[in-house]
Amino acid sequence: MRAYDREDLQFQLWEVAGLGDLIADSDLDREAVNGILDAADQIARDVFLPIGREIDEQEPQFVDGRAILPDAVKPAVQAFVDAGFISAGFSPEHGGMGLPETVHQAAAFILAASNVSLSGYGMLTVGAGRLIQSFGTQAQKKTYLEPMVEGRFFGTMCLSEPQAGSSLSDITTRADPMDDGRYRITGRKMWISGGDHELSENIVHLVLAKIPGGPPGVKGISLFVVPKFRADGTRNDVTLAGLNHKMGYRATTNCALNFGDGGECLGELLGEPHKGLAYMFQMMNEARIGVGMGATALGQAGYQVALAYARERPQGRAPGAKDPTSKQVAIIDHADVRRLLLAQKSAVEPALALALLCATLVDAERAADPSAGVLLGMLTPVAKSWPSEFCLEANKHAIQVLGGAGYTRDYPVERHYRDNRLNPIHEGTHGIQGMDLLGRKILMDSGAGFSVLAARMRSDIAAGGECAAALAEALTRLEDVTAHLAAQVAETPDRGLANATLYLDMFGHVVMGWMWLRLTQAAQKVAERDGDSDILRGKRQAARYFYARELSRTRGWAEILLRNDQSAFDMQDGWF
Amino acid sequence: MRAYDREDLQFQLWEVAGLGDLIADSDLDREAVNGILDAADQIARDVFLPIGREIDEQEPQFVDGRAILPDAVKPAVQAFVDAGFISAGFSPEHGGMGLPETVHQAAAFILAASNVSLSGYGMLTVGAGRLIQSFGTQAQKKTYLEPMVEGRFFGTMCLSEPQAGSSLSDITTRADPMDDGRYRITGRKMWISGGDHELSENIVHLVLAKIPGGPPGVKGISLFVVPKFRADGTRNDVTLAGLNHKMGYRATTNCALNFGDGGECLGELLGEPHKGLAYMFQMMNEARIGVGMGATALGQAGYQVALAYARERPQGRAPGAKDPTSKQVAIIDHADVRRLLLAQKSAVEPALALALLCATLVDAERAADPSAGVLLGMLTPVAKSWPSEFCLEANKHAIQVLGGAGYTRDYPVERHYRDNRLNPIHEGTHGIQGMDLLGRKILMDSGAGFSVLAARMRSDIAAGGECAAALAEALTRLEDVTAHLAAQVAETPDRGLANATLYLDMFGHVVMGWMWLRLTQAAQKVAERDGDSDILRGKRQAARYFYARELSRTRGWAEILLRNDQSAFDMQDGWF
Repeated sequence: MRAYDREDLQFQLWEVAGLGDLIADSDLDREAVNGILDAADQIARDVFLPIGREIDEQEPQFVDGRAILPDAVKPAVQAFVDAGFISAGFSPEHGGMGLPETVHQAAAFILAASNVSLSGYGMLTVGAGRLIQSFGTQAQKKTYLEPMVEGRFFGTMCLSEPQAGSSLSDITTRADPMDDGRYRITGRKMWISGGDHELSENIVHLVLAKIPGGPPGVKGISLFVVPKFRADGTRNDVTLAGLNHKMGYRATTNCALNFGDGGECLGELLGEPHKGLAYMFQMMNEARIGVGMGATALGQAGYQVALAYARERPQGRAPGAKDPTSKQVAIIDHADVRRLLLAQKSAVEPALALALLCATLVDAERAADPSAGVLLGMLTPVAKSWPSEFCLEANKHAIQVLGGAGYTRDYPVERHYRDNRLNPIHEGTHGIQGMDLLGRKILMDSGAGFSVLAARMRSDIAAGGECAAALAEALTRLEDVTAHLAAQVAETPDRGLANATLYLDMFGHVVMGWMWLRLTQAAQKVAERDGDSDILRGKRQAARYFYARELSRTRGWAEILLRNDQSAFDMQDGWF
Repeated sequence: MRAYDREDLQFQLWEVAGLGDLIADSDLDREAVNGILDAADQIARDVFLPIGREIDEQEPQFVDGRAILPDAVKPAVQAFVDAGFISAGFSPEHGGMGLPETVHQAAAFILAASNVSLSGYGMLTVGAGRLIQSFGTQAQKKTYLEPMVEGRFFGTMCLSEPQAGSSLSDITTRADPMDDGRYRITGRKMWISGGDHELSENIVHLVLAKIPGGPPGVKGISLFVVPKFRADGTRNDVTLAGLNHKMGYRATTNCALNFGDGGECLGELLGEPHKGLAYMFQMMNEARIGVGMGATALGQAGYQVALAYARERPQGRAPGAKDPTSKQVAIIDHADVRRLLLAQKSAVEPALALALLCATLVDAERAADPSAGVLLGMLTPVAKSWPSEFCLEANKHAIQVLGGAGYTRDYPVERHYRDNRLNPIHEGTHGIQGMDLLGRKILMDSGAGFSVLAARMRSDIAAGGECAAALAEALTRLEDVTAHLAAQVAETPDRGLANATLYLDMFGHVVMGWMWLRLTQAAQKVAERDGDSDILRGKRQAARYFYARELSRTRGWAEILLRNDQSAFDMQDGWF
């Protein structure tokens, strides 16, 4: 069994995301892309899926300052490296395969659905490596990037500190310049995913720190390359202070790291001083889309298990059936079980459509389409947050379909639920995504980004179909709410932003309504071309469900947002 | 620190649930009740809370056919027994303390908030013992009930089987009559909480089984008392086949039990043949209210941790604050954190109000008030399901307030979230509660139960206050939806019941709106009597939040239910 729906993935790539057009001028053809996805599928099924339970049950151990992972992790990660799924993320000039991001993300989806905590190492390494690719010197590229592309070195991003989680302005890690141009790094970092392990020859930490004398706050943050082992092979002064014991996502170590406890932590500045946060945002934005893809993949994985179980498990009879000696039906015959399955399907499929749309926008941006970047910026908070919230909800439903069995480790759905609970937290919490959307993205360039998005949606709405009218209405509602809130944010930022999270959810639901419009339009096109089929009927029915049960929620949310309800803002500490 | 809000509990007991009137004619006074709650509080804080992490991390082990629990469990459960919290649930004629159910449940709340998986043994024993109290012979009461009241024997309920989880009609465990009046029991039971352990001298299983030759389906189910050790001290033929590895609720063992593998499992019929399911419903209904109380307690426990953390943890600044060198604020100063806290408060407090209202109805029923039983029957599915769904959501929010820290075992909130995920599953899934409400309770006696409930709500609405008008509107909406759906259920049960779960949620939200009416009316009364205070202001603000953000959802749900949207019903297996 697969942890994802290959038929849906094919449909989404070729009929919705337009991968055919995207690769038309490249060396790739459909057969080659399918070969890459088959390779991912093979590792997913043969290597990643079978060890899911084992590497969840055996948490990483902190022993003598080292992070010890279960034995099964290293060969699995190595298989991933050997198949080229790290090099796939880099351009050929540095030894990478130069795959379109859309194909790279499709493979990432397959692998994350099969074992999200193993796939984390690759995502972090690609993200960190691309920063060096963008801002590093030739020497840095040679020393650090090339071994990362080869999968010999892994990467991390070191932002948070014990006293500064979400507030990077308050980091205190310092970088003192040395005579040779390098920097001496001193400080403590928290929540570092992949921060220590013995899966690769070396770990390249990308560390935010402040050079003494720089401006206060985020304007004084610089970015440093700090390897676990220096270029001469000696151990750098980076020590593992401890591992976090997490509810899920366990095979990705999560570390507290001390830099320079012995005064000998050497780092190299990446790019120019004081521009660290802007650089890091490149990685954070990729990581945010990656988090959304991971959350989507977990939602999909749970849905596949629930669907298979619902088709096989006999239990009970229809409410109208009166004969207790009649045969029990499969639970999928119960309307409420179909609701639980549809709720999952109607969340995970548009979430995948959005993740793939974001990937095509990355490809378009690389091909120098200026509007792609604007649109991507608008969609990033949604691509991160919506699946983190609503595909987690899908995982909750998957457990419910299995009942008691779903609450045990005999099935992976309880693990998906634990794994996915991380996603609304890391790479910017749900609340921070709301602030990013309403407090920054909506206001930038007098709302130009939102206009680009709305125009793109209207152009799809104009192509018609069953969803078009309702989406047009929801979009108009979103425009009203947006104009209303943007004015309030400008006037009184604290009160104006008080409901930024609810705005994010409403915005996300409209975007997902748009994804369902695209999915059903593509289904219509295929039905006209090849004849109708069950998979296409399923898309239409899931869209109907989503519009009836989920998109309709935007009406109630709009009421709350139009009066910008201040019940939470007005609550006082002492009243709790 | 406490895992619950003692001040709120006092307010709810004395000002909302009317405990003063309830005990007016009894031996108890306010001081005595507070003494009992203090005793529960002491065990909660000194014994239950400190071992929460330890007994979660050390799962019960299945060794040589025995269930081995961590060492810390036995003395903790013994302290609970020694303090009288099992005997508290029984009437004095069998050696119990004969506490009002309202006081008993308040103590249960304190203990469950502090460690839900320890408190499970007491709840099961009281539930099983009360069945013997109601339906047992004098000999059975002497042999089984009295040692249960003393806390020497524990009890279980054995309903589910591998092929029959929610569908009791399909159980195949058989009970063959023996010459001496006893029965030989043969069959396999699944998901038995507390099914085996070495915490008590004996375990008294209440087992559903069929006597050969009886009617098919649920009409042929009888109830048997099957002890682990027979009265003569020999081991009965009940064997532990395995333990389930659960996501949470770990210190309550969950067992697969085999009865009569060696042909020597002896049981006694409880009450009359073929009435087993009706008898068991007494225990199930108590268990359902108990599940709701446990879910509420977990929600409350998470809220307390999140609130304390939010007040202490400095992070970031207000959106309008521009100076990065200014001091960081406590995160409770962020509007979105207050929203997360209010969402928890506005769910857990009315959930407690409903659980205590149910307890007062049990007391009224014991005092032979006929309407109390009808109202209790209507409220039971809500008392079970609403906290299971929405206090679980509260636990999700508690993790979010703590961010990364909440995702680790350094804090208990991830454990609460795992523990609480069981509650929408056991003692009748969320879906089954919806069927019970819309398919049975609403239709019984031509809707008499719903009329009693609506009249009771209208009488409270008539007393006025800030919530009254909005609640009246929501109640009218619920009445419209109810009439509409009841007609459809009568006509086409399968389609009519297709949205029973959504109806349950809508019904539950209106009931919780009613609870907020009662809480704010009580707050008003206290303010007029003793002057206003922060706790009373907090009640009013939480009610405002609930009405603005949650009760308002009933509008959208009513739209879906009035057209009885069939998007899930019409979905076909092959389309997924």
